[in-house]
Amino acid sequence: MNFQKGKIKGRQEFLKDYSEESKENGFLRSALTEKNQFQTLEKFMLWFESRKKANRFIVKQIPFDKLDKWYFENETQNLIHESGKFFKIKGIRVSTNFGAIDKWDQPIIDQPEIGILGIITKKFDGVRYFLMQAKMEPGNPNIIQLSPTVQATKSNYTQVHKGKRPLYLEFFIDKMRSKILVDQLQTEYGGIFLKKRNRNMIVEVEEDVSIYDDFCWLTLGQIKKLLLIDNFVNMDARSVLSCVPFISQELEKQYESLSLENFLQSELFKNISEGFKRDLLISLIDKKNVHKPLAEILNWLTEMKSKYELKIEEIPLKDVSDWMRTEREIKHKTKQFFSVIAVAVQAGNREITSWTQPLLKQPSYGLVGFLTKKINRVIHFLIQARLEPGSFNIVEINPTVACNNARYRVQQQDRPPFLELFINASPIQIRYSTIQSDEGGRFFHSQNKHMILELDSSASLDIPENYMWVSLGQIMELLKHSYLNIDARGLISCLGLI
Amino acid sequence: MNFQKGKIKGRQEFLKDYSEESKENGFLRSALTEKNQFQTLEKFMLWFESRKKANRFIVKQIPFDKLDKWYFENETQNLIHESGKFFKIKGIRVSTNFGAIDKWDQPIIDQPEIGILGIITKKFDGVRYFLMQAKMEPGNPNIIQLSPTVQATKSNYTQVHKGKRPLYLEFFIDKMRSKILVDQLQTEYGGIFLKKRNRNMIVEVEEDVSIYDDFCWLTLGQIKKLLLIDNFVNMDARSVLSCVPFISQELEKQYESLSLENFLQSELFKNISEGFKRDLLISLIDKKNVHKPLAEILNWLTEMKSKYELKIEEIPLKDVSDWMRTEREIKHKTKQFFSVIAVAVQAGNREITSWTQPLLKQPSYGLVGFLTKKINRVIHFLIQARLEPGSFNIVEINPTVACNNARYRVQQQDRPPFLELFINASPIQIRYSTIQSDEGGRFFHSQNKHMILELDSSASLDIPENYMWVSLGQIMELLKHSYLNIDARGLISCLGLI
Repeated sequence: MNFQKGKIKGRQEFLKDYSEESKENGFLRSALTEKNQFQTLEKFMLWFESRKKANRFIVKQIPFDKLDKWYFENETQNLIHESGKFFKIKGIRVSTNFGAIDKWDQPIIDQPEIGILGIITKKFDGVRYFLMQAKMEPGNPNIIQLSPTVQATKSNYTQVHKGKRPLYLEFFIDKMRSKILVDQLQTEYGGIFLKKRNRNMIVEVEEDVSIYDDFCWLTLGQIKKLLLIDNFVNMDARSVLSCVPFISQELEKQYESLSLENFLQSELFKNISEGFKRDLLISLIDKKNVHKPLAEILNWLTEMKSKYELKIEEIPLKDVSDWMRTEREIKHKTKQFFSVIAVAVQAGNREITSWTQPLLKQPSYGLVGFLTKKINRVIHFLIQARLEPGSFNIVEINPTVACNNARYRVQQQDRPPFLELFINASPIQIRYSTIQSDEGGRFFHSQNKHMILELDSSASLDIPENYMWVSLGQIMELLKHSYLNIDARGLISCLGLI
Repeated sequence: MNFQKGKIKGRQEFLKDYSEESKENGFLRSALTEKNQFQTLEKFMLWFESRKKANRFIVKQIPFDKLDKWYFENETQNLIHESGKFFKIKGIRVSTNFGAIDKWDQPIIDQPEIGILGIITKKFDGVRYFLMQAKMEPGNPNIIQLSPTVQATKSNYTQVHKGKRPLYLEFFIDKMRSKILVDQLQTEYGGIFLKKRNRNMIVEVEEDVSIYDDFCWLTLGQIKKLLLIDNFVNMDARSVLSCVPFISQELEKQYESLSLENFLQSELFKNISEGFKRDLLISLIDKKNVHKPLAEILNWLTEMKSKYELKIEEIPLKDVSDWMRTEREIKHKTKQFFSVIAVAVQAGNREITSWTQPLLKQPSYGLVGFLTKKINRVIHFLIQARLEPGSFNIVEINPTVACNNARYRVQQQDRPPFLELFINASPIQIRYSTIQSDEGGRFFHSQNKHMILELDSSASLDIPENYMWVSLGQIMELLKHSYLNIDARGLISCLGLI
């Protein structure tokens, strides 16, 4: 592939060139590939159903006093595990100048250690495959979801709970056994986790890998298809997949020597994509027609971080005001926010076979969505700089709308900016709309509608100071440096890029 | 300037083209310019001396009980200001798996608010000038140093101390009056400040600016000269200047279409630089011959952040073990670390005319230095991932060596890696060597030798896992996203790039 010499090639040639001539990383090719030498998507679905049946599990809500190994600590009434490890639920007292409410108390999950969310990848006949897992989590609405190869807390791999060491963990720890392609610290949801971060890893393996019962190889193109199904791909997998660097430096450089017009008119480009997907690829690659240069976006983020203040005082759970504890629930007096419950779990394929644990329950569906529109002929996403109490760095980049808990159902005057556009979206604006659920190891049946809308390029919106239009390429650059929150990353992972 | 068409131009033409044809940001041209239409460097030095004489000041150490408005809080014995604002000195209890000592207590400066360190810039006849200030700080060894246009804490500009509002602050706050060129949150020294960050800003002004007594316009080329003088440019100015983006996107793109060989042989390049400076420019621009791609460096940083743990418990100053308070000092029992003292200040040009305050005193000179050497013909810097108790993000990028306090004088077996190379550096290896002092508003006569060494490209070193060779361009990319600590930024600001 060489644009400068004016050669125009078709899709097959492109794929060949792309993997052979340049130091291509294989992600783009895998995203273009739905053909899987191990199994079709139909066979995969049958296999996935069989895994569901093979693994018995019962999850039921229990009163707190039926929790085993978990208890309310005497002095603080914090909910803790007897090992002193795992997460604990304690309280925080928040004061901030961001948003309508300037002071409140709330429970929060405290788990300062950094876990690993990791996917193994391997090339077969030149195509990159991802080792995915059919994994149960007690809080998943459908119990089993497609998950990364490994989800390991430090407690997991230091084996505090005396269970089995997670399968495949060695490929993420032993540098001699894999090549690290992605290794990024990314945050969990700052409304409920206190400064929690995980390593999001993708490692490439060359040696033969044993495939255990609940695991299978999928191409990225297949996974993108599965992201169109409600609650199928779990949050951790979406978080890791959002970090995939689609555009190798080589492709970027080759693009820079062409004008956008020439690029759009090339056979190559016509063949690999069309419609919204085609627009996304332009938005990923084009650096010339962006609304604002990246440096200005970083300046804007600095201003937001400096303007908005957050003071967090850690307090005992017993001192959290406006929240109450019953036999089965810790809840806000208005019932508008999450509650803490306890569940008992029995399962066959989990590291240990039965356990009890606390989970967080949301009162209703949430909605997370990106508004997009073309600026200078390039699709831009409307990002939101927003402060959450548990955020690692004060302000994180959220999607245009992220309203958890029933807040989007309340009366119109309380609605956050732009929510109206999602609620009243016309079908021709909707580019993506699926239900996705939160991490089932911590959240009980917590689900959010994920939407991406495309507005007409002539649409004129009032943009509050904490919102900004950015290209997809800029989003990927910001994501790499951990500026995006989990909702924004989750939506990005759902984009069927090519 | 257009490499592709094969035109080769001289320095003057380059400068002309560079500012007129491309969207050049003016920083590089200013760095190349020592001619100042307002004053030569000689006249500036006379002016600077006159400012010293015009401003009387007396700084003397006093016992703590002579502090005015500062006192030891009853319950905690923390050292605080009666307004509840400004900084306070309290204690932390540290546990970590980084370094030889895994647990200790220490005093720390707590000042969670984000201040502004800002420089105004303006173009006169196409050349960018910087508005610098001759500013006194009580802890400066020579009292007055060249400082940014504005150093403002939030207490400053909300006027807690009832002094004057800092001059020129409006240009950093009112968006209608300037264009923001740099706005980055950067950290203070994490060994002594608890998660303290400041906005480092450079704003461009078009309107006429009144020049007050202690201010003057300098080119960046002149400031780079002044950075060769011991203790002349203050730490805040160095921090802001380290953020200067020398290479515009345009220059970068033009470079990418040339091979390194052609670039090196062009008249243009021969003219604008030579020797180490020439090598630095290559290291700033070249992305092809780097030791590791940036993605791999980010992966390595993630690994370091995941491996090294830091637990900080904030404790009352009275509970800090191994430290003692006398009438005039809070000090470690070994006297090897910093101590807290109190000073009384009288000055004419400060926001208020006399005051007392605590300062931190170091027991002796420190040493901060970068090892550099050519890899693939490109100068690389040996960076160090290091954990400090007050760091914002666990691990920050330090210079190769950063040993504050007398540690580099202790017996050889305790010396940090690579220190030996600096102590025994031969003159032909030394590319930069100057004494620079820490921020005189917090530190009393705290000075560090700043060194940059160039090793022979064949030099073979044992590189511990928390060290990495990176190019100057990569350093600038990491700096932009706030990965570099104050020592590393300070050294980078001293590089006379062109």
